[in-house]
Amino acid sequence: MSEKAKVYIALVHYPVYNKTNEVIASAVTNLDIHDIARCAKTYDLDKYYLVTPIEEQGILVNKILNHWREGFGASYNSDRKSALDIVDIKSDLLDTISDIENISGKKPKIIVTAAKKYDKSITYSLMKSEIANSDCPYLLLFGTGWGLTKPVIEGADHVLEPIVGRGDYNHLSVRSAVSIILDRLFS
Amino acid sequence: MSEKAKVYIALVHYPVYNKTNEVIASAVTNLDIHDIARCAKTYDLDKYYLVTPIEEQGILVNKILNHWREGFGASYNSDRKSALDIVDIKSDLLDTISDIENISGKKPKIIVTAAKKYDKSITYSLMKSEIANSDCPYLLLFGTGWGLTKPVIEGADHVLEPIVGRGDYNHLSVRSAVSIILDRLFS
Repeated sequence: MSEKAKVYIALVHYPVYNKTNEVIASAVTNLDIHDIARCAKTYDLDKYYLVTPIEEQGILVNKILNHWREGFGASYNSDRKSALDIVDIKSDLLDTISDIENISGKKPKIIVTAAKKYDKSITYSLMKSEIANSDCPYLLLFGTGWGLTKPVIEGADHVLEPIVGRGDYNHLSVRSAVSIILDRLFS
Repeated sequence: MSEKAKVYIALVHYPVYNKTNEVIASAVTNLDIHDIARCAKTYDLDKYYLVTPIEEQGILVNKILNHWREGFGASYNSDRKSALDIVDIKSDLLDTISDIENISGKKPKIIVTAAKKYDKSITYSLMKSEIANSDCPYLLLFGTGWGLTKPVIEGADHVLEPIVGRGDYNHLSVRSAVSIILDRLFS
């Protein structure tokens, strides 16, 4: 890995599918903020974006973040504070990408995960080695609900292979999927 | 791996430490049930035990399980049903171990995770290969709250090395830790 490859992660709440394949904006959940922030911090990612176009959700997330960054939570649990310090909220994917361009001076390459294989699907070891040898920033996208929409997946630079366990069952929570993928790419 | 190594996982709510190092019984949370069941099912483990001595907590867990196994949830989301089918509740660790002995006819070897290294600490690759070549059942213990108590860790057959990411931060949620460890041992 280059001394410090710039890697960003975003949890996308829009556009994602619901159970009946409609494009929706899903709700932000408290544990998605905490679990994924702690995981992103463990693997030393640069920022963790929550992407939601719903203004009230952004206000709610900011309340939670302020509690842990500056309120009672900051003194009660400073480890939580340092994880949540890397969290940011953006209203859409374009804003997220612009933010990374502003920080790093370069457009990030987009990596997504999907439940099926695509022509451009890439193994974890190849992806790991590409990141290690690149000076490009990378943005890893994870979908909530029933997953990222087809246009987002098809527009990405890379699609990671689905996580395969020991059986046929393949319905991990997004929190588990993020944990496993960050470990495979950055441990 | 032997054709189907019998591996069990338990999420321990007692005895665990709280923030001030007292031994407590922690509360069962809904997402610990779901996320870890889905992950255990993905890696084809045999059973996922929730260990709590608090009777009311057991009743609550059973209500949740019934909703997804037999109630509205079973038809709404059958993938969730099949994950939760492997969940069981036990009041303590001895009961959990007895259940495994009843099922498999052998006492399980106990594997725990800990934040520091012990004399008997073992790497993930060695543990993976031991399980692959053993016909013993294994029970993986994970602690909630501030972690498994010292006597539980010292009484285990194996202590897995702490998960190290890319930085100094090492405060994963138990849901993330379970996900990463199952992937390292069984993918």
